[in-house]
Amino acid sequence: MAPASASPAPGTGRAEPTGPARHDDELRLVPLRHVPLIRKGDDLADLMVRACMESGVVPEAGDVLVVAQKIVSKAEGRLRRLDEVEVSPRAEELAVLVGKDARLVELILAETERVVRAVPNLLIVEHRQGWIMANAGVDQSNVGAENDSLALLLPEDPDASCRRLRSALQERFGVAIAVMINDSFGRPWRNGVTGVCLGAAGLEVLRDCRGRPDLFGRPLRHTDIALGDEIASAASLLMGQADEHVPAVLVRGLRVAARSNETARDLLRPADQDLFR
Amino acid sequence: MAPASASPAPGTGRAEPTGPARHDDELRLVPLRHVPLIRKGDDLADLMVRACMESGVVPEAGDVLVVAQKIVSKAEGRLRRLDEVEVSPRAEELAVLVGKDARLVELILAETERVVRAVPNLLIVEHRQGWIMANAGVDQSNVGAENDSLALLLPEDPDASCRRLRSALQERFGVAIAVMINDSFGRPWRNGVTGVCLGAAGLEVLRDCRGRPDLFGRPLRHTDIALGDEIASAASLLMGQADEHVPAVLVRGLRVAARSNETARDLLRPADQDLFR
Repeated sequence: MAPASASPAPGTGRAEPTGPARHDDELRLVPLRHVPLIRKGDDLADLMVRACMESGVVPEAGDVLVVAQKIVSKAEGRLRRLDEVEVSPRAEELAVLVGKDARLVELILAETERVVRAVPNLLIVEHRQGWIMANAGVDQSNVGAENDSLALLLPEDPDASCRRLRSALQERFGVAIAVMINDSFGRPWRNGVTGVCLGAAGLEVLRDCRGRPDLFGRPLRHTDIALGDEIASAASLLMGQADEHVPAVLVRGLRVAARSNETARDLLRPADQDLFR
Repeated sequence: MAPASASPAPGTGRAEPTGPARHDDELRLVPLRHVPLIRKGDDLADLMVRACMESGVVPEAGDVLVVAQKIVSKAEGRLRRLDEVEVSPRAEELAVLVGKDARLVELILAETERVVRAVPNLLIVEHRQGWIMANAGVDQSNVGAENDSLALLLPEDPDASCRRLRSALQERFGVAIAVMINDSFGRPWRNGVTGVCLGAAGLEVLRDCRGRPDLFGRPLRHTDIALGDEIASAASLLMGQADEHVPAVLVRGLRVAARSNETARDLLRPADQDLFR
């Protein structure tokens, strides 16, 4: 199996398959397993370089490195001890309604712009960074051996985290790769969580297809593709949610454009344009 | 690059990587390009067998073949001529409100259980099969050279289509593969469409992770993973929405269970359990 052609044609973000091999145009996702448990202050770029080496993977221009939100949060020191949380009257009240630990609710509210839905066993909020999600992403799974006494917040600014990591990796590998942080969100109408793009750097996260021709030359109308979320979902397939030990995935063979000015925020639909609401 | 290990361990749906090659555990998606334009009555199994051959791909047990909704709909004769549509007064009225062709709205209503949202330029409905989606999936892109005079409906029963195709392919290839039909839906709160699983046969579409241990042995709570939609999104990355000419993708290396009793309907959240609504 020949490696996929990873370099998009300049300016277009897409390229015709090149070379003689049959599967030059396939999409490959390589799990990076050799990552130790992460602690505050760990150098993620360094750990990713080692993980690539130990997996025998050499990043190429056009690759996308997808990193799980949890290891970014841990490295950035977003772990909180519940016994150090001061609970406000508002959190106390909401905790009774949703049936959660009031200290956890306090952490959630501190990350929250507005509460979207609060019923027993469920607290859906608009995160200060714009995501509509359960518990503002505050999570107690895979956080540490002390289990119920710890909770992990989302990274302060995932796009900025991606930019930093991308720049460090570019220096180490000498090639331009894109970096994404993914997470898993629930969604209305459909069961189960799917991967979403929480942060991105150097990547086309949203493709505007308006004006592109269909198979018959008819211009497409109104179709934007959320490439960022589709890549995040693809990587999630290898990461899982439990004890898979795959905190990062290298994606090769995407025909997406390198975009220095797009971020995961481009995937957030402004409330006044959200016709589903 | 060695082929990925494709056979899940019996009963578990997951397997440890086997063999000496470094990337035995990678996930691979191979685009199947050699598919002619589809007409009503075409034998999809036959066309898929040829596409695999011409792409030099031999399906293995555990592979998932993802087929774009459009070619299934076309083969099943779901193309409609707008000039043969009789428009009801209700469609006429709704067409004025949303600013669409009344014949198109008539086709949409015939597929619709209830209208969820109707405003200028947007008609969101609950499809008779349970999906909440724009225009009941009735689409005019990539349908044919006569462009504005044709519209394509979703398959009558995508799960049944997948079962038929799976059974035919199993006979041809002599191995058990799973089959999925994917489509692209918009969603609330986030920009852009993503791939969704519209039909499935022989595939674990929803993984119930409750009770599974996290990295630290703490049981996970409440996490179902919508594997079907994540696979659909991954395949969408190769299919695109415009003139990519990739109507099918073979996915290899998933560690998902072969499930004969799960269908894409398992991804539909019953309204009374939908706490986002």
